[in-house]
Amino acid sequence: MWQNDLTNQLGIQYPIIQAPMAGGPTTSKLVAAVSNEGGLGTIGAGYLSPSQIRQQIQEVKQLTEKNFGINLFVPSNYQQDEQKIMTAKELLQPIEQELKVDSTVKIPTYEQDLETFHEQIQVVVEEQVPVCSFTFGVPSQEIIDHLKKNSIIVIGTATTVQEAILNEQAGMDMVVLQGSEAGGHRGTFENNAEQGLIGLMSLIPQAADQINLPIIAAGGIMDARGAIAAKCLGAQAVQMGTAFLVCEESGASQVHKETIIKASEDQVVLTKAFSGKMARGVNNRFIETMKINEHILPPYPIQNELTKGIRKASSTSRNPEFMSLWAGQSPRLAKASTVQELINQLIKDTEVLKKRLSF
Amino acid sequence: MWQNDLTNQLGIQYPIIQAPMAGGPTTSKLVAAVSNEGGLGTIGAGYLSPSQIRQQIQEVKQLTEKNFGINLFVPSNYQQDEQKIMTAKELLQPIEQELKVDSTVKIPTYEQDLETFHEQIQVVVEEQVPVCSFTFGVPSQEIIDHLKKNSIIVIGTATTVQEAILNEQAGMDMVVLQGSEAGGHRGTFENNAEQGLIGLMSLIPQAADQINLPIIAAGGIMDARGAIAAKCLGAQAVQMGTAFLVCEESGASQVHKETIIKASEDQVVLTKAFSGKMARGVNNRFIETMKINEHILPPYPIQNELTKGIRKASSTSRNPEFMSLWAGQSPRLAKASTVQELINQLIKDTEVLKKRLSF
Repeated sequence: MWQNDLTNQLGIQYPIIQAPMAGGPTTSKLVAAVSNEGGLGTIGAGYLSPSQIRQQIQEVKQLTEKNFGINLFVPSNYQQDEQKIMTAKELLQPIEQELKVDSTVKIPTYEQDLETFHEQIQVVVEEQVPVCSFTFGVPSQEIIDHLKKNSIIVIGTATTVQEAILNEQAGMDMVVLQGSEAGGHRGTFENNAEQGLIGLMSLIPQAADQINLPIIAAGGIMDARGAIAAKCLGAQAVQMGTAFLVCEESGASQVHKETIIKASEDQVVLTKAFSGKMARGVNNRFIETMKINEHILPPYPIQNELTKGIRKASSTSRNPEFMSLWAGQSPRLAKASTVQELINQLIKDTEVLKKRLSF
Repeated sequence: MWQNDLTNQLGIQYPIIQAPMAGGPTTSKLVAAVSNEGGLGTIGAGYLSPSQIRQQIQEVKQLTEKNFGINLFVPSNYQQDEQKIMTAKELLQPIEQELKVDSTVKIPTYEQDLETFHEQIQVVVEEQVPVCSFTFGVPSQEIIDHLKKNSIIVIGTATTVQEAILNEQAGMDMVVLQGSEAGGHRGTFENNAEQGLIGLMSLIPQAADQINLPIIAAGGIMDARGAIAAKCLGAQAVQMGTAFLVCEESGASQVHKETIIKASEDQVVLTKAFSGKMARGVNNRFIETMKINEHILPPYPIQNELTKGIRKASSTSRNPEFMSLWAGQSPRLAKASTVQELINQLIKDTEVLKKRLSF
């Protein structure tokens, strides 16, 4: 049941990957715990500076001798529309006032992003991280070749069959198929955001028929039922985000974890309001307030910068109403536990389920 | 693998239900073929008059001695907003001119709908149809009791866990969980349309934990992979629409079938433009043209009446651009075949897949 080409290639015991949740949840403790329990922990490094990345890699290495991964965001071109920035600032101002947030923010520029990206890659190579995955696009051929030459396994992210094909053509070793169920940011890069909202029941078999890469299923998978279902559909592994986010070792805030555990699936919505890029999380006042103006906000990463102060202040005061409470569509399956408990339960339940299904 | 409480109760060989695709596809030939091959054929009777329903039931009975089902739409209250109707007529006028359609249409009223619904139920009882399923809501307790007293199995439709619970509380025998992947109209009735877009990977296990009813999974399932995956997640049967829509026996137009077979998953979109109710189908000029005004259109069934002429003219002239090309998110899995070929292949592939997965 458990071992296959993918686990062999990644050097892991179980085909369970902890999703790279950038922005706090993927502490070194979480990443190492997942790897120590036989899965693949992943540092969500999209927002980290090259020196922060180096520091966390070294921390993880102190905590585990097993393989682990790192995830980076592929920067893409965006328009710096001053009018949109002005509009967004006006819309955010009343919230900033309410939360007593200073609204002076530095707007990032594309050039910096690309430079940082290359430095991030360089750290990954120097530190010999076993696995490097990418979100928001396919990096240049040069980068992919550079990583592969250094024996680093490269994993892409796709939300449509076409995006999966582009990852295969670029030479990725594996591809994460992110279903519409997934929490956090949509990885859609080739299609528009709405076109990239394909449920895993549809996405996995259609992609499996078109590509030869090992498939990692991501979105709404929290337990043995999802793990076996993903295998039936054609995946060789699962990537779980929300299930690990609520674990003790995760760095997500307590209020984020508690909100997910109390939430029902119909409270988890799509929004562009936090970052300018479509993402899935538990509905709150910020999302509701911004909803009718979502289409006039600046793109990622500008909007992300503009809302940073609000998100931080909301988190500091343990107020769930203005935080990005990223979560997939299965919050009812979320349980407060340790990584060890979660993985052990999944393995145990799989054996029980196999017997019950009389396969 | 195949027999369970649900198949026993429905008196069928395989846990495969043909989705009730109202408006043409579910010919008596299709319904009977599915039942004759061991599944459950279903008449999509939502748009049929009581006398049309009686006629088709009698036709199906001529073609099969096996059990079959019928599906009805639960009428709901709606606002007849003259301003919205005027706006919709103005928006549709250029298309009507292009297609040379007469735009005089009768706007339905709620009272008529409810009366027709009761007459439809009466025919189902008189004709002793073995199974009656419902979409767009839960019918009154009186209706459910009446059907059950007459030994008719009643099946509800849910798109969220809460809707599944409401179906169980109302005394339904089984419930169809319609995932966000599903083609055609969204069955959402308690939540708003966006909240009811839950992928099956999330919807099935979360509902299975909360209800005791047998679950029928619907949405994107086209072959053995989806059928086994649905069982892993907690369903006892699958309901397939698009897979049967493209079959030889289906009454869908040739251009509809061909469009689906050529389509990719990212071309299948959600729209309210055809009927005023959210539905999924292959993108075309009509959907694109109406997109920015979708939110100001009148509700179902008014908008549905207003676009009838356009849809009919488009279909008559074999022009896919103004037809409702309903389809789920797995069009790449659609194959032109007979019902017998489709079901035989699914059964055969299931055995192969079980072995390959070494369950």
